[in-house]
Amino acid sequence: MTFSTPTRRQLLAMIGKVAGSAAMYQAMTSMGFAAESEYRDGVSLQGPRGGKKVLILGAGIAGMCAAYELRKAGYEVKILEYQNRHGGRVMTIRGGDRYTDLAGDVIDCDFESDGYLNPGPWRLPIHHYAVFDYCRELNIPIEPFVMKNDKAYLHSQHAFGGKPQRVGHVEKDIRGNVSELLAKAVNQGALDEAVSLEDREKLLEGLRDWGVLDKDLRYRSTEALGEYRGWDVLPGGGLMPEKEPSTPMDLSPLLQSGLWNQILNFNSYEHESPMFEPVGGMDGIADGFHRQVGSVIQYGARVTRIQQGDDGVTVSYEDGGRGGELRQESADWCICTIPLSVLAQLQVDCSDKLRKAIGAVPYASAFKVALEFRRRFWEEDDWIAGGISYTDLPIVQIAYPSHGFFTKGPAVIQAAYDTYTAGRNYTYTWSSLSNEERIAAALHYGRQIHPQYDTEFMSGVSWAWHRVPWTLGCYGQWTEDLRRAHYETLCEIDNRLVLAGEHCSHIPAWIEGALLSALDTVSRLDQRENA
Amino acid sequence: MTFSTPTRRQLLAMIGKVAGSAAMYQAMTSMGFAAESEYRDGVSLQGPRGGKKVLILGAGIAGMCAAYELRKAGYEVKILEYQNRHGGRVMTIRGGDRYTDLAGDVIDCDFESDGYLNPGPWRLPIHHYAVFDYCRELNIPIEPFVMKNDKAYLHSQHAFGGKPQRVGHVEKDIRGNVSELLAKAVNQGALDEAVSLEDREKLLEGLRDWGVLDKDLRYRSTEALGEYRGWDVLPGGGLMPEKEPSTPMDLSPLLQSGLWNQILNFNSYEHESPMFEPVGGMDGIADGFHRQVGSVIQYGARVTRIQQGDDGVTVSYEDGGRGGELRQESADWCICTIPLSVLAQLQVDCSDKLRKAIGAVPYASAFKVALEFRRRFWEEDDWIAGGISYTDLPIVQIAYPSHGFFTKGPAVIQAAYDTYTAGRNYTYTWSSLSNEERIAAALHYGRQIHPQYDTEFMSGVSWAWHRVPWTLGCYGQWTEDLRRAHYETLCEIDNRLVLAGEHCSHIPAWIEGALLSALDTVSRLDQRENA
Repeated sequence: MTFSTPTRRQLLAMIGKVAGSAAMYQAMTSMGFAAESEYRDGVSLQGPRGGKKVLILGAGIAGMCAAYELRKAGYEVKILEYQNRHGGRVMTIRGGDRYTDLAGDVIDCDFESDGYLNPGPWRLPIHHYAVFDYCRELNIPIEPFVMKNDKAYLHSQHAFGGKPQRVGHVEKDIRGNVSELLAKAVNQGALDEAVSLEDREKLLEGLRDWGVLDKDLRYRSTEALGEYRGWDVLPGGGLMPEKEPSTPMDLSPLLQSGLWNQILNFNSYEHESPMFEPVGGMDGIADGFHRQVGSVIQYGARVTRIQQGDDGVTVSYEDGGRGGELRQESADWCICTIPLSVLAQLQVDCSDKLRKAIGAVPYASAFKVALEFRRRFWEEDDWIAGGISYTDLPIVQIAYPSHGFFTKGPAVIQAAYDTYTAGRNYTYTWSSLSNEERIAAALHYGRQIHPQYDTEFMSGVSWAWHRVPWTLGCYGQWTEDLRRAHYETLCEIDNRLVLAGEHCSHIPAWIEGALLSALDTVSRLDQRENA
Repeated sequence: MTFSTPTRRQLLAMIGKVAGSAAMYQAMTSMGFAAESEYRDGVSLQGPRGGKKVLILGAGIAGMCAAYELRKAGYEVKILEYQNRHGGRVMTIRGGDRYTDLAGDVIDCDFESDGYLNPGPWRLPIHHYAVFDYCRELNIPIEPFVMKNDKAYLHSQHAFGGKPQRVGHVEKDIRGNVSELLAKAVNQGALDEAVSLEDREKLLEGLRDWGVLDKDLRYRSTEALGEYRGWDVLPGGGLMPEKEPSTPMDLSPLLQSGLWNQILNFNSYEHESPMFEPVGGMDGIADGFHRQVGSVIQYGARVTRIQQGDDGVTVSYEDGGRGGELRQESADWCICTIPLSVLAQLQVDCSDKLRKAIGAVPYASAFKVALEFRRRFWEEDDWIAGGISYTDLPIVQIAYPSHGFFTKGPAVIQAAYDTYTAGRNYTYTWSSLSNEERIAAALHYGRQIHPQYDTEFMSGVSWAWHRVPWTLGCYGQWTEDLRRAHYETLCEIDNRLVLAGEHCSHIPAWIEGALLSALDTVSRLDQRENA
């Protein structure tokens, strides 16, 4: 690749033209965002005609977001929340926290450091624009979440003698071997029909550089490979030993290892780099909304019935603050964010088809285990600072903290995590274990990747969403058939009642789904109010 | 890929075995670090036999590191530093700073935010273990530096109508097109000799998943491609518009665009993800050492001559604190970290071959420009939070800050940066410009990628290392021939004098090179002392 370099005189001449020239294009349209969403710049509500009250069920992200926008537009808002905390599944478990699950198992978190577990959402992709718009608006401090770490491990019990391989090595060796094979095919003329002569030259040049092939277009250990893949002996200072490039893995064991499959975890649009996290825990996002709408939340309110007529709704609930006394709250509209798994068990006045939709969507299972260790051995010994190692063991993945890098003292890693995935049903097995058993299992499997577990372990905490009384599962587990049959019904306004939450979105399980659902819901409610 | 899932009973049985089983392998040896360096766990000096003094020239990273280790081992240490600041090239320019370059050009930094420019080193790869060992030891706070951002741009004036393309799109489209071509070649039997039947099946399966090919093994717009490459219309909440997958670029325009070449910037071992930076600016590392050895630094000391005999060294210097009065300092040993570009002009008693080596290594040119804008338009409009956009314009790259994400108000980007690269000599052109001209040029070119420059610009600052009086260039520009002829001589102890710094390492320009050079130098000096 050659560049044309302006002389000083040419450069100065060009600079002179800056002021006069028009912008080549407008950023927003050129980047292709304009079409993406009418909500790109947030909702703009007309507000109610006269005093109107909206009752919101659930102080999770969808409920608080809806309350925030409706209040800004002039609606009276009240939130009823079953728990004595805000945020719903957007929560963070820290040392000193205690939870009791459905089975009566008491989960104590004994972490001594400021490490934590986000049992629900734990990372934010940049295209979740509603999340970041609110982080900006609500002054929620954000830091990078390291999703892909080239030093993290990929591990299979049945490959490379059970020895973990570096993400960067696997990825670069796939790329190198693929490049070598394709270059060979091109040079044999196998693709003469598919690729023009001019493109073939560029393709060979590209493969050589991208795959770091040698002059014979083979993927071999060379000094250039060291600069690309790393060293067996690193370049040093002064008269330290001579550097030695590393040696790539051959294609055949790589193909048979199954590790190529693990690389795909980094491939999705949702996992593109960089991802982000709130500083100090995911509940920072819930806290941001709570600072705005905390005053309208009534806690300890266990909804038992939703009644509605043409003019409004009446919600019955047991008031935990008054010993469970049955009370009622009325409003012009009701936005219900209660998970379908719970809502299906309540008495709800609504159309038959909405009732069917509410009962139709199963909730996915998911679990997590976090472990605290005496020191950051993954950083000190393994040079893994942040990121995720994947394994075919039932812990599925080990995620290292994206904060407190290179500090001394204890730290917490997310030592096991999976959601329901077709073809493996780990999550049910893990959900059947007690907290203590889940911690023991995470230790048992994790030490095969990090033997330091044996000496550095301090304490652990775990979470299984199917054992959580207020959600009975992790998130709405849609299929294409279910969407066709029930999604529109679930989202439509049913007289004076409308549902919102991640289950009413095409982005299940993510905070963005809850936010966009809330924004869409309040927009339609506001339009109906002003129709 | 299938997993065998243990039952609850099997899992509990396995957990029971944890305590009794030995660790499968030791982490350190299995990870292949053991061979990498004898310095992996830091130096261990014997210390002097009786009182011994070491005079160090230069309070940069190498000088301060050497001073720190020698003092810990019991040596008396003094540092002479030309400037009135510590850190050398490891520096950070902030609002309120003022510098005067060789040409008399006064460089004022008027930044209003806490944004900054690191004119020298600005990012740390994780395998620079000495850097991170010292960050841990000296309590230097570290945060991720976003090197690769899939949303950042690749840009060529001559491709795609000058419209920037997303890094993720280019990378995934290369991978998809390469996978399609290789799958085609495999299915045509073109690689039957190179790849066994068993491997061919795995290869096709791998290419289909890795390249996200459709059922006919073609790289086309499908829903799966949306999940992988992104959407023209993003999945939404409630009844928002239906999602639409994006459309990939065809192979031919991609090959001809030159953007594949720009992807290589993310390929090197030094740029693997994640990289890191000190919180608040790269001078945080210099400050960490300064907290340890600040008391032994004499500032404003302009060394003019280094004399040595069999028993020690005497260094003459003009004392800036006393109006330039000529003074002398004697010691048993001298470690000189003065850049060769400056040292070559001083009177130095040493062997002829060392004098030749000092004069033989040219210094690379490099420049940077930083611009402050009224708002983070790259985050708000372009969804680029951190990372680097590359272009074939003479600014070469635009780096977005890896801190203060999603905050309101002004922020600083590194708007142009290049070091000398064979085939393009931008750095000399840029070095010939004044500070004001460099800022104007960065604006002129950068607005072709970010038209928001026109309305959001506040102020700028620039740096050209060949115009800096105390280095006369950026770093030692070694070639293989120069290494063969002079490197060992340059690093060897010459009677009572020994050199250190990035120029005495195989990692030029990086802090790690300066540190490993210092560690190697003090080790050999200590061995000589105890021989």
